[in-house]
Amino acid sequence: MSENKIPYKIYLEESEMPKAWYNVRADMKNKPAPLLNPGTHEPMTAEELGGVFCADLVAQELDNDNAYIEIPEEIREFYKMYRPSPLVRAYCLEEKLGTPAKIYYKFEGNNTSGSHKLNSAIAQAYYAKKQGLKGVTTETGAGQWGTALSMACSYFGLDCKVYMVKVSYEQKPFRREVMRVYGASVTPSPSMETEIGKKINAEHPGTTGSLGCAISEAVEVAVKNPGYRYVLGSVLNQVLLHQSVIGLETKAALDKYGIKPDMIIGCAGGGSNLGGLISPFMGEKLRGEADYEIIAVEPASCPSFTRGVYAYDFADTGMVCPLAKMYTLGSDFIPSANHAGGLRYHGMSPILSQLYDDGLMKAVSVEQTKVFEAAEQFARVEGILPAPESSHAIRVAIDEALKCKETGEEKTIVFGLTGTGYFDMVAYEKFHDGKMDDYIPTDEELEKYRAKLPKVD
Amino acid sequence: MSENKIPYKIYLEESEMPKAWYNVRADMKNKPAPLLNPGTHEPMTAEELGGVFCADLVAQELDNDNAYIEIPEEIREFYKMYRPSPLVRAYCLEEKLGTPAKIYYKFEGNNTSGSHKLNSAIAQAYYAKKQGLKGVTTETGAGQWGTALSMACSYFGLDCKVYMVKVSYEQKPFRREVMRVYGASVTPSPSMETEIGKKINAEHPGTTGSLGCAISEAVEVAVKNPGYRYVLGSVLNQVLLHQSVIGLETKAALDKYGIKPDMIIGCAGGGSNLGGLISPFMGEKLRGEADYEIIAVEPASCPSFTRGVYAYDFADTGMVCPLAKMYTLGSDFIPSANHAGGLRYHGMSPILSQLYDDGLMKAVSVEQTKVFEAAEQFARVEGILPAPESSHAIRVAIDEALKCKETGEEKTIVFGLTGTGYFDMVAYEKFHDGKMDDYIPTDEELEKYRAKLPKVD
Repeated sequence: MSENKIPYKIYLEESEMPKAWYNVRADMKNKPAPLLNPGTHEPMTAEELGGVFCADLVAQELDNDNAYIEIPEEIREFYKMYRPSPLVRAYCLEEKLGTPAKIYYKFEGNNTSGSHKLNSAIAQAYYAKKQGLKGVTTETGAGQWGTALSMACSYFGLDCKVYMVKVSYEQKPFRREVMRVYGASVTPSPSMETEIGKKINAEHPGTTGSLGCAISEAVEVAVKNPGYRYVLGSVLNQVLLHQSVIGLETKAALDKYGIKPDMIIGCAGGGSNLGGLISPFMGEKLRGEADYEIIAVEPASCPSFTRGVYAYDFADTGMVCPLAKMYTLGSDFIPSANHAGGLRYHGMSPILSQLYDDGLMKAVSVEQTKVFEAAEQFARVEGILPAPESSHAIRVAIDEALKCKETGEEKTIVFGLTGTGYFDMVAYEKFHDGKMDDYIPTDEELEKYRAKLPKVD
Repeated sequence: MSENKIPYKIYLEESEMPKAWYNVRADMKNKPAPLLNPGTHEPMTAEELGGVFCADLVAQELDNDNAYIEIPEEIREFYKMYRPSPLVRAYCLEEKLGTPAKIYYKFEGNNTSGSHKLNSAIAQAYYAKKQGLKGVTTETGAGQWGTALSMACSYFGLDCKVYMVKVSYEQKPFRREVMRVYGASVTPSPSMETEIGKKINAEHPGTTGSLGCAISEAVEVAVKNPGYRYVLGSVLNQVLLHQSVIGLETKAALDKYGIKPDMIIGCAGGGSNLGGLISPFMGEKLRGEADYEIIAVEPASCPSFTRGVYAYDFADTGMVCPLAKMYTLGSDFIPSANHAGGLRYHGMSPILSQLYDDGLMKAVSVEQTKVFEAAEQFARVEGILPAPESSHAIRVAIDEALKCKETGEEKTIVFGLTGTGYFDMVAYEKFHDGKMDDYIPTDEELEKYRAKLPKVD
């Protein structure tokens, strides 16, 4: 089909939606390192993990072999409410930039939760329901994951207890309110409801919380309450598996028009969006069938790929979770308070960490004022108000398109637009008013956190 | 095609998008009454209107004859960024309600402005640009129109001055901020920048403003500044014309699957969404080709159709605009402060007013706590957080579907879901906390405003 026939938005038919998730681990020669028991440093067994996570999700977490895992009918039905999501050709942005590059973005903000997080939330809620649980617990920072999970639990009639990082709880009352619309209970973390919360509050009076701390609280509540399990919105293998639906749809849409991307770009916090977006492309790369330049974009204020170390680390502040081998800044690392939006977790998906360590993808870090510049430029021409997280990918996509303008290369660039920024107007306001700072942690600072990494043989 | 083949979302191809707007006036036997000069009470001429509105828009405003008006290529290109919008089959809602009714909704919230308003905003900005203007002025209440116009002006490089009802300006800082992302200037109304604003502030110290007052200010600024014109987001014939794209797409999507609706439901403030949604169906009805039950839903706190009178009235508080014959509550009417969201204009589109007066459509009013109940019920199963305005239509669609449950009728119900409620979380919070009241104006109160209607022979 000729180039000029490519529509603004490529929608798949419902019948073209993926019926199975793709598990990139099956094609990885070097598998991601296993989660370890924090006490014994032995690989976590399915039984041990089953105390924290739903049984089916544990099986997915540990499955390094099956390339395709069927998406249950109930989840596919739910997906149909907001999927397939559009793959948009950014004609207006291309014109504005005057670039010969062809830019596409996969837009995952077309649902109330406002982000891609719903893809995994609904899967995790489904398996919890299937197991006959009463409810689930989780943490949320910027609020996208909490919103998605609240919605998914509401759909399946599950109780949903969200521990929301206190600073976000206070700064984002509307996010909290959306979760309430979906019937979730939202508690600012650290709370006085858990042992870990009490301990952290005692040791750090007035603390505004962190993701690592909220995770510890949510896990404690899940473990102590019969009929509850803990669910997590990123980092884990199972989450990347569910998010593969993004990449599978993207690839199907591109294939439909015979388009082969040169470059795939995604923002990376815990890695769920990026891991999902790139999975089928990475699969081809791993199998030697095709090559793509794959770029992870992270905030300069939380640079786990670009300035972290690849090592076993605690997943949470309370050290109740398994140890994960990942690119990490150290479990006590908290990005500067002036960092807006998400992408603030200290570690990175073990799958992506292994792929990065194997040289199969690149990573760059960007400063937030540059990110908001890109966000505004994008909004004005493409008509979507992007989330700050997603705008990291926009920044690098624009930079790469501008390089093409210089070289005259007609590269095809695909990036993931993970969500909308409707709940981030405080950050946009700061940016407009010239009150947004960039902060890059010093080497000394990073070294301080790194020194606390657990010793694992 | 068999019933079970209907997908969750019916998307048209870009090639199936309308190439012309449909002008329902061409098929109306009783044309809407003309706008009158407020001084002479003579019909406004194109020349008179041209001092306030763009020339091409004046032509559209006065055109009662041409059934189809071509959508300029530039506007169609812009539409492609977010249109065609999906027509969604509400399978989940139907199941939840246990109704035999088949419910569809046309979802217009899939763009940054978050509502259908963008359909007319881009058209009005286009004609302003074509005329070589520097910029446009407008008013906004809840903020949807201001957001849409800001985005449209940003796209065409036009200056955009928005007068925002002061109470909304203060209560909705994020709405204001979105407009700034798109480069608009936003002034709380009544301001001290206009003669009318100064006068209103002097007469009503501490007033929190009204739509009618913000309109007067925006018109004054447009008329006094060379290279500026005023644009309005609803009520006018031209706006209903542009919004016909909603109905045309809806009809094309239904036709594609051989679906004939029994009932079409839309919320009505000034009437732009409802007028657009129903236009091609009303056309068939006017031409005697088909019959549909058409229902306008308005807030019980601002009941222009159900409790207003059909008469010439001022369009604005400052009485600088032409007189319009419409169902009206009187130009001084302002809904109670406890009314959340939009749909607060005192009058109603002259086209819809004439159709309603001719018995071609019905109207019902609903109280806001019932509206938010419906909104929450919808959000939990359909995965879209609806705007309060749109939720008026949801309320009546649910009520009608429940009637079908009682009677066993398998009616096909189509309603307009005009936008998302991301910026309405304060209202949702009030609802959850049981702090939302219903307010129905008394007959005495309505009589007081009615007494001030202008005398027109």
